[in-house]
Amino acid sequence: MGALLRGRTPAEIVTALVQGRTPDTGGLPGLGRALRRWAGRLGEAPAEPALDAWRRAGIRLVCPGDPEWPGQLDVLGDARPWGLWVRGNGDLRYACLRSVSIVGTRSASAYGSHVCTEMAATLAERGWTVVSGGAFGIDGCAHRSAVMAGGVTIAVLACGVDRDYPPGHHGLFRAIHAKGAAVSEWPPGRMPTRPGFLVRNRVIAALSRGTVVVEAALRSGALSTARHARDQNRPLMAVPGPVTSALSAGCHEIIRDWGAVCVTGARDVMELLSFPADEPVGRARGPVLPRDGLDPVTRRVLEAVPGRAGRGPARIAVAAGVDFDTVMRCLGALAAAGFVERCDRGWRIRRAPAGRDGPRP
Amino acid sequence: MGALLRGRTPAEIVTALVQGRTPDTGGLPGLGRALRRWAGRLGEAPAEPALDAWRRAGIRLVCPGDPEWPGQLDVLGDARPWGLWVRGNGDLRYACLRSVSIVGTRSASAYGSHVCTEMAATLAERGWTVVSGGAFGIDGCAHRSAVMAGGVTIAVLACGVDRDYPPGHHGLFRAIHAKGAAVSEWPPGRMPTRPGFLVRNRVIAALSRGTVVVEAALRSGALSTARHARDQNRPLMAVPGPVTSALSAGCHEIIRDWGAVCVTGARDVMELLSFPADEPVGRARGPVLPRDGLDPVTRRVLEAVPGRAGRGPARIAVAAGVDFDTVMRCLGALAAAGFVERCDRGWRIRRAPAGRDGPRP
Repeated sequence: MGALLRGRTPAEIVTALVQGRTPDTGGLPGLGRALRRWAGRLGEAPAEPALDAWRRAGIRLVCPGDPEWPGQLDVLGDARPWGLWVRGNGDLRYACLRSVSIVGTRSASAYGSHVCTEMAATLAERGWTVVSGGAFGIDGCAHRSAVMAGGVTIAVLACGVDRDYPPGHHGLFRAIHAKGAAVSEWPPGRMPTRPGFLVRNRVIAALSRGTVVVEAALRSGALSTARHARDQNRPLMAVPGPVTSALSAGCHEIIRDWGAVCVTGARDVMELLSFPADEPVGRARGPVLPRDGLDPVTRRVLEAVPGRAGRGPARIAVAAGVDFDTVMRCLGALAAAGFVERCDRGWRIRRAPAGRDGPRP
Repeated sequence: MGALLRGRTPAEIVTALVQGRTPDTGGLPGLGRALRRWAGRLGEAPAEPALDAWRRAGIRLVCPGDPEWPGQLDVLGDARPWGLWVRGNGDLRYACLRSVSIVGTRSASAYGSHVCTEMAATLAERGWTVVSGGAFGIDGCAHRSAVMAGGVTIAVLACGVDRDYPPGHHGLFRAIHAKGAAVSEWPPGRMPTRPGFLVRNRVIAALSRGTVVVEAALRSGALSTARHARDQNRPLMAVPGPVTSALSAGCHEIIRDWGAVCVTGARDVMELLSFPADEPVGRARGPVLPRDGLDPVTRRVLEAVPGRAGRGPARIAVAAGVDFDTVMRCLGALAAAGFVERCDRGWRIRRAPAGRDGPRP
């Protein structure tokens, strides 16, 4: 598939298959047979009405090169997904800029749940996006806690984003869609498979700046995500626990043998993952430059930033008529100068605080 | 004191002071005044009857160069004690050859006590000597558990070895003396002082192959022992615990910031501290060499090893009429050949197992 896609768009290949032609394989051996096999699956391809229904449900396919594509997935090299199905109001690229993956066992202990809840809530309050799977246990706990704290979370699923798996997380998935997103390499309708979970784990690790294992037994699937983070040279962290708890044995193992950093809470995580460019949290400053001092492009970007609700950078780029990289550069400069600020849904105009240190009403 | 002792024996100096002379200071400035100050303390020096009483109580002064002096204290350089007062039936040098320091908070939690008990018992059962202080909490727990398992422990005190401090450990100290020893840099009669505890900690770290911190709050004195182990380039280990427990915060800190190895039990400790030359535990073999094949010196050493009760290598050296290094070399060869084995009190003749794999009666 990779060989075929080099130099051809997916649309060209599908069109050829639909018309019963064998697409030009460029002399690559064995491709003809693979293509005939794929042609047999054309019957499963969604018809236009289904695609319309997905669109109405807010499901979109985001591919490399799209404004919403998270560039950090390039770390995966040949294992990079061809595209991600995304469902939710969050901007995937933006949400993942300052994010941390929190993973762990499906059968979390009271201790693990407690630590996970505290950590995810604090991270969410400080504007960090939580990335995890959609399972019971630590995954669900991390999402729920971040959502309750008003934060954005990304659920990376091993099934279609239209499915609620596990069904018990139906309500949680709705809450995730409201501000964040569910994403999947597999198209809507797809049921989860066991190998799918392991394949999916590389995306959980690659989407964020670093991965925290909160609680994991020695053979937990969460350690596969940890292994991906290590292999991707992303910071890997683990929460210690009682040595008498089998559910912390995996954490202790990766601290001892893989060099995972021993973290005891959100503060340790933020300390490790913060870039020098990250704004220090909670420091409020007024603009230090007059609006007239801005160059024309930056001023156009500033005009495209909404006052209150916030807007993702991809949509700001469209409104300002500039490309994505330019909008990110301008937003950074505007934030540093105190004109704009990050919010749940993207960026908005920063308003001068009414009272200097007074509490908000 | 160090400058004065270079080139003079302590006896020469004391004799001069007792006779009211200023000992020859070799032109070293300021020494005369210090000597006059020390002379003022001659009145506190124990009289012969006191010395006799100490001897009868099994208290001895072991100095560098003595057969019982543990050579690994040389790691302390200028901070090496001038001598150690030792009380107990154990041979200090021999006991510390394969030893581990277990330290921690005085106010151990149920969790810390449990982990410490398991660890010390397993280490003692495998023939490891436990080194610790004499305090309540982790120190006492480590000694008690090792003693209950039939092991040898060394208590390094910040008061005289004739004192039971804390008094609640009166019975425990008797049990420690039975097979192991209490040691102190300070002479009998001395009360403990606060700075003394910190000074003492360097000896706890230096006496063993490595140090384990079982439970310690962020400012625990146990971390001073850990710092000494680190500065001495001895393996430093810490037991993780719940991040919700302040008593594990010090352990997590040294794992994260000092590179302490995260250990979850005695197995991890033994794995880290075993030398390639250590006999694998529990493997029973008969002699592989006939007695006649031994060289004359080794045969003499073998003759000096008792059959059942065991004897320390220093006494074996005297009985065989060879020096200490020779006796250690010969004992190693004899053990490898299956003639002798280690026991609580030193070395004894290894007896062929009655049944090959059968349980002992």
